[in-house]
Amino acid sequence: MSAIFPTSSGSPSFEDEGEPVYIQRNDHVATLVLNRPAKLNAISAYMWKRLHLAISALSKEDSLRCILVKSSSAKAFSPGCDIHEFEELRSNKEQGRQYGRLMHETLAAFQNCPIPLVAEIDGICVGAGLEIASTCDFRICSEKSRFGAPIKNLGLVMAYPELEPLLQLAGKDVVLEMLLEGRIFNAAEAYEKNLVTCVVPTERLSVKVNDTISGIVTGAPLVARWHKKFVKRLITPSAVTPAEYDECFDCFDTEDFRSGCQAFLNRTPPRFRGK
Amino acid sequence: MSAIFPTSSGSPSFEDEGEPVYIQRNDHVATLVLNRPAKLNAISAYMWKRLHLAISALSKEDSLRCILVKSSSAKAFSPGCDIHEFEELRSNKEQGRQYGRLMHETLAAFQNCPIPLVAEIDGICVGAGLEIASTCDFRICSEKSRFGAPIKNLGLVMAYPELEPLLQLAGKDVVLEMLLEGRIFNAAEAYEKNLVTCVVPTERLSVKVNDTISGIVTGAPLVARWHKKFVKRLITPSAVTPAEYDECFDCFDTEDFRSGCQAFLNRTPPRFRGK
Amino acid sequence: MSAIFPTSSGSPSFEDEGEPVYIQRNDHVATLVLNRPAKLNAISAYMWKRLHLAISALSKEDSLRCILVKSSSAKAFSPGCDIHEFEELRSNKEQGRQYGRLMHETLAAFQNCPIPLVAEIDGICVGAGLEIASTCDFRICSEKSRFGAPIKNLGLVMAYPELEPLLQLAGKDVVLEMLLEGRIFNAAEAYEKNLVTCVVPTERLSVKVNDTISGIVTGAPLVARWHKKFVKRLITPSAVTPAEYDECFDCFDTEDFRSGCQAFLNRTPPRFRGK
Repeated sequence: MSAIFPTSSGSPSFEDEGEPVYIQRNDHVATLVLNRPAKLNAISAYMWKRLHLAISALSKEDSLRCILVKSSSAKAFSPGCDIHEFEELRSNKEQGRQYGRLMHETLAAFQNCPIPLVAEIDGICVGAGLEIASTCDFRICSEKSRFGAPIKNLGLVMAYPELEPLLQLAGKDVVLEMLLEGRIFNAAEAYEKNLVTCVVPTERLSVKVNDTISGIVTGAPLVARWHKKFVKRLITPSAVTPAEYDECFDCFDTEDFRSGCQAFLNRTPPRFRGK
Repeated sequence: MSAIFPTSSGSPSFEDEGEPVYIQRNDHVATLVLNRPAKLNAISAYMWKRLHLAISALSKEDSLRCILVKSSSAKAFSPGCDIHEFEELRSNKEQGRQYGRLMHETLAAFQNCPIPLVAEIDGICVGAGLEIASTCDFRICSEKSRFGAPIKNLGLVMAYPELEPLLQLAGKDVVLEMLLEGRIFNAAEAYEKNLVTCVVPTERLSVKVNDTISGIVTGAPLVARWHKKFVKRLITPSAVTPAEYDECFDCFDTEDFRSGCQAFLNRTPPRFRGK
Repeated sequence: MSAIFPTSSGSPSFEDEGEPVYIQRNDHVATLVLNRPAKLNAISAYMWKRLHLAISALSKEDSLRCILVKSSSAKAFSPGCDIHEFEELRSNKEQGRQYGRLMHETLAAFQNCPIPLVAEIDGICVGAGLEIASTCDFRICSEKSRFGAPIKNLGLVMAYPELEPLLQLAGKDVVLEMLLEGRIFNAAEAYEKNLVTCVVPTERLSVKVNDTISGIVTGAPLVARWHKKFVKRLITPSAVTPAEYDECFDCFDTEDFRSGCQAFLNRTPPRFRGK
């Protein structure tokens, strides 16, 4: 993983607002900021690693009562993984496994976080952006937000650990509508289809988020952690086997994946051959 | 349990309309009435015991085709457990376990009832009131009804047997929104979030309930029982272990639970310390 | 099964548009047509057998990217099984088992189909019609469509393999509302209750269906198959036992089933005795 995330001598500084992922603090609340606005917060491998370290560190803080996950971009929560990195970091099954491990450890860290997680979504929330949001306990979004995962156009597969939280939210029919047709839902549809907690006008977004956080932090903190733990326990399905998990990376050795990514980068329509 | 519900020499009379839980009968339909209007139907330990006996007795009646669960109050189905009893009956983990066993046996008796259950909800339906309603097959409510479980303000935890039927209805996101933020949903929101079967104007509530009951009782009774049994079989998740179950009562030994209940009784805002 | 479906010497011709189930082809898309408009597409045992053979054959075609399931009737997708056949083919438990095996093998073949399935619904979609639609990945319906399964009026039970896909779509409360009360949902209610993917005006139905198919077939075909496989893997509950399965056919030996079917055929209200 060193090529993806060079280890530094010291521990990372999560408060550095020049970083593409950083943390702000305000009493019992930490805010985890996706901060790569020039790329609409497309998630690089470096950002995945940093997200993993940040959420893992925050999860250990006993005094935290709420974590807000938001974006520094006015246009997007995140459009998903940075496809421009795929040729270097995700171009065959073995690389797919490595990159997948990084994503899936990060998503698992979000899912295992004992602290209430609120996602504030104002704009594009697609692919891995939606996957991160789906591991949060609240998805509060503005009316202009958009949701989907049109990775069928890349020849790319959503692996079990990415599918599971979406299925728990929205059920198989909504997830397959999104994946098979490649539909992008507007905010009202996302609410109707149980993908988001609520939709508010953009100008009311931060007020609504603050109300929710206020409701959370005034509650008994241990009760919040118990409730998260108990709900997680009841909805956990039987685990997939290692062999089942490994099949999630077969797509990276297909011709269609290579031509799909190329078409995306060339801004041409993909042509798939089923190979 | 004798302190909670003194055993009498004979079997209880469920037809006594002076009791806080009683049964009315009309041919193939029994109506189970929550009848403590002076307290908006706050459920006492005595009422839990009586509910348990009543639903258990009704469940054995082969000729019954439908059970209606309703309230004698024009303001509430039920606001939940009677918090005024907690100091005496639910003030530490051991008491929490005993009171919990009473609640959970009652909820299990509702869940195991082979007869179609219709809840008529006209007003507040909160906490244990919502838990009872969630074990019914239909939740028909008036527009003025309200739903939630703001027990985070009490330092109190919803145990596995209480969570499970709510999760089966509304999914993890809705349940956590309710528990973590403490939100109270109005009737339209409760319908959007799959907490209720339908919403009607108050003046049409009894007509709608009667239509539903009529649809049920004109059907083949064995078919109704098979359908309930088969659906229950398919949605039952793996059972929690005894140790997992016991953790549901840890909250009763927390400072936050004691101060939360005190704040409720004093009508002051709770201040929680996470202990 | 020979009484139900006489074997012919050759393989069936699925392209024969005089048959009550036939297949049209257009490049990567196959259309499976229910074609018994004189009976509103009531499904005969012969149609079940033909559906089973057709979907099984299509499932093996590697070059297919989408299967559209539709009706040749302007009034109905299907009102369910042809009740006029029940006296001859489904009049006791042993016959119920045989007919059930035919239905359940067919529904399983739909559920196991690796190719995206789109149901186009324009009118009545009830009973087994709804069951078939529920095994598809998309249910695109017109505003005039109607959904339900009022088999309580027949004394007939929906077996585990028929219930499971409906539960996965819509949850226990919606399924029990439909089965216990016998409610028929209009298209808007069916959308609110997660029974259908979307609702469009009748005149826009084929345009919407074509848009969805276009979204599917332009995607990477292997990705579509992986996504279907992975979602299916994550939502599969523990299997019912053979003894549990067999109980699904007890209804065929009840008096209520016989009198319910008779009442249907006589157009008189059923009177059930719970036997």
